[in-house]
Amino acid sequence: MIQVEQALTIIENNSLKMPIRKIKVSKSLGYILAEAIYSPIDMPPFRQSAMDGYAFSHSELTKYEVISTSQAGDYSNIELDKNQAIRIFTGAFVPSTLDTVVMQEHTTLKDNYLEINKMPVPFANVRNQGEQIKENQLALEKNTLINPAAIGFMACLGITEITVYAKPKVAIVVTGNELVKPGKHLPKGKIYESNSIMLKTALRAIGIQKIATFKVKDNLKATKKVLKNCLSDFDFVLVSGGISVGDYDFVKEALLSNGVEELFYKINQKPGKPLFFGKKDETLVFALPGNPASTLTSFYVYVLPALKKRMGFEAIHLPKIKRKINIDFTNTSGKTLFLKAFYDATNVSILESQSSAMLNTFALANAFICVPHNQENIEKEEEVMVIPIN
Amino acid sequence: MIQVEQALTIIENNSLKMPIRKIKVSKSLGYILAEAIYSPIDMPPFRQSAMDGYAFSHSELTKYEVISTSQAGDYSNIELDKNQAIRIFTGAFVPSTLDTVVMQEHTTLKDNYLEINKMPVPFANVRNQGEQIKENQLALEKNTLINPAAIGFMACLGITEITVYAKPKVAIVVTGNELVKPGKHLPKGKIYESNSIMLKTALRAIGIQKIATFKVKDNLKATKKVLKNCLSDFDFVLVSGGISVGDYDFVKEALLSNGVEELFYKINQKPGKPLFFGKKDETLVFALPGNPASTLTSFYVYVLPALKKRMGFEAIHLPKIKRKINIDFTNTSGKTLFLKAFYDATNVSILESQSSAMLNTFALANAFICVPHNQENIEKEEEVMVIPIN
Repeated sequence: MIQVEQALTIIENNSLKMPIRKIKVSKSLGYILAEAIYSPIDMPPFRQSAMDGYAFSHSELTKYEVISTSQAGDYSNIELDKNQAIRIFTGAFVPSTLDTVVMQEHTTLKDNYLEINKMPVPFANVRNQGEQIKENQLALEKNTLINPAAIGFMACLGITEITVYAKPKVAIVVTGNELVKPGKHLPKGKIYESNSIMLKTALRAIGIQKIATFKVKDNLKATKKVLKNCLSDFDFVLVSGGISVGDYDFVKEALLSNGVEELFYKINQKPGKPLFFGKKDETLVFALPGNPASTLTSFYVYVLPALKKRMGFEAIHLPKIKRKINIDFTNTSGKTLFLKAFYDATNVSILESQSSAMLNTFALANAFICVPHNQENIEKEEEVMVIPIN
Repeated sequence: MIQVEQALTIIENNSLKMPIRKIKVSKSLGYILAEAIYSPIDMPPFRQSAMDGYAFSHSELTKYEVISTSQAGDYSNIELDKNQAIRIFTGAFVPSTLDTVVMQEHTTLKDNYLEINKMPVPFANVRNQGEQIKENQLALEKNTLINPAAIGFMACLGITEITVYAKPKVAIVVTGNELVKPGKHLPKGKIYESNSIMLKTALRAIGIQKIATFKVKDNLKATKKVLKNCLSDFDFVLVSGGISVGDYDFVKEALLSNGVEELFYKINQKPGKPLFFGKKDETLVFALPGNPASTLTSFYVYVLPALKKRMGFEAIHLPKIKRKINIDFTNTSGKTLFLKAFYDATNVSILESQSSAMLNTFALANAFICVPHNQENIEKEEEVMVIPIN
């Protein structure tokens, strides 16, 4: 049995980055860049008006003849005399003989003759070519998380394909003779199977799409066979149930006999003590306790960091914040506790019903309170470690 | 021109909840429940062992004959004598004549005769039928946001279909003769179109899937026609560009002539001043300034709350937190500023390059700093309002 921090370190050290692959920018939300991106163009690609108004060559003159128009998208590099100007719109090309744009609100126009009532400074309202970024200049660093702004940025530079770390393929293996699919009749002694749909949803929430679910009976041979295929075809194998000490818990044996190296088994924590972590080649295996709330706690605390590390994230653990707790609390278990909780800007409350079997509290929680194994007493209003989820 | 807070109030008051619809629980992540959920079953559905061990009827006896086994999923309501016990596993049915389970670690077994070395209290390690939730008891309240835990919870109660608020269908309309699709050759005077892919991604990030993109030239007739169709077929119409005061900005005219009621036009803010908000029936229209960073800022601050209100969310605005700013800052614009920023546990830094034309800063930002229009001076280390994004 190891402590929580040791478990997290072992997971981090054994989670290798996924192979890189080229994907379309339009499909890249939530991926991590596996290359630095350099701009293929100057941006703006030409001298551009930043206003609707008139472009002219700045001098002592205040009156100009308006001889042409430059709308966004136009390109006509006409040569103008010193006393000539053009009507121009935001984003439009500024001919090379002109240097300044005056806002239309600061002008009067009469019969194509422009009078500037409030003279701007030279070069005002003109965006220079490459002012924002120059060709071959660094646009986005390697290991950047791709968000909507990054996608927009790459698109505005004309980039359509990039290299990222692949997202892992995940197998969910659910064990237990007692499990019945929701929607079916529930015979006496059976319960509805909910872990696979819950894990699948939690995986989808971080953008993982390649997920397959397998159900096996509590039977060594069947478990071994399913796990063998999963270990060769997936990057992660998440097994739900069958990992405690009962005679009918075959999972650990089935994993080891398939060549999985045990990296740890059992963590000094509640919920989720009988957690198994192992690997075969680069495939990671988590065998999670079958109780739904234990499964989901283990997912957030242990599986998610491993997924993020493999996806190329630099910050892989859930963030930690401090909040004032709502009650006195005693932890005599000697175990690290992950308590389902609700936090706001200043405080955190322990929610009722911390049972590892049920998810109702979890559905209302927005955080865990993490109580270290060696902290016995917490007083009301004391600051505690809060780990936001969702 | 109105202030930011007025704009947000007008948006909130005009965003009606979407119609309700039945969907599968497995597809319900990120939806809001439009009904309260009552449990269709007792959970656990029967008296269940919470441990691997032996079930017996608690008395003064410490030795028992083990006559049978109850594995998870089994159902055999055998009657036992006072000195008989059964081998039992976590989650398994406890026959009605038995009341207590002893952990196997606290027993010795010899030739089917069990000796209890550490006697548990009566009723220990037995989960009663309906202990977690009873049939017809409230499971999840109306207006609950459906997260992985809620999906798992509903599945474990056997629920497969629920009623939620529909997600809106969104049309993105991009205007501008200057726009070229990324990947194509970029003629002089043109720029790459990036707003549609950026908005599409930002919509997908909150789980909206039904998104269509339309591109129109700067031309009143074409703009009117496209908008007419969008107004009848979509719940939101997001127009990018064509809303400032230039002669070639047709969007407002095209909207009004299609029967859109103007609810506001122009907000006293930077970036994103020329923002138009209107409605036709229940369809909401945002015409966003075309500069990419203005577009995305407007999306997060104004469009997102409207989407969330329609999707049934109760907390619709981005959360606000306080952090210490990294520099002295002066706002003489008289406008509310949304500055792209990066925050951590205690501080916030204004990022370089706040231009509304470019997204590079945005790609690195994890928040806005909101500087109110009437606040001129902020001193270094002063607490400012930070609005996290992503």
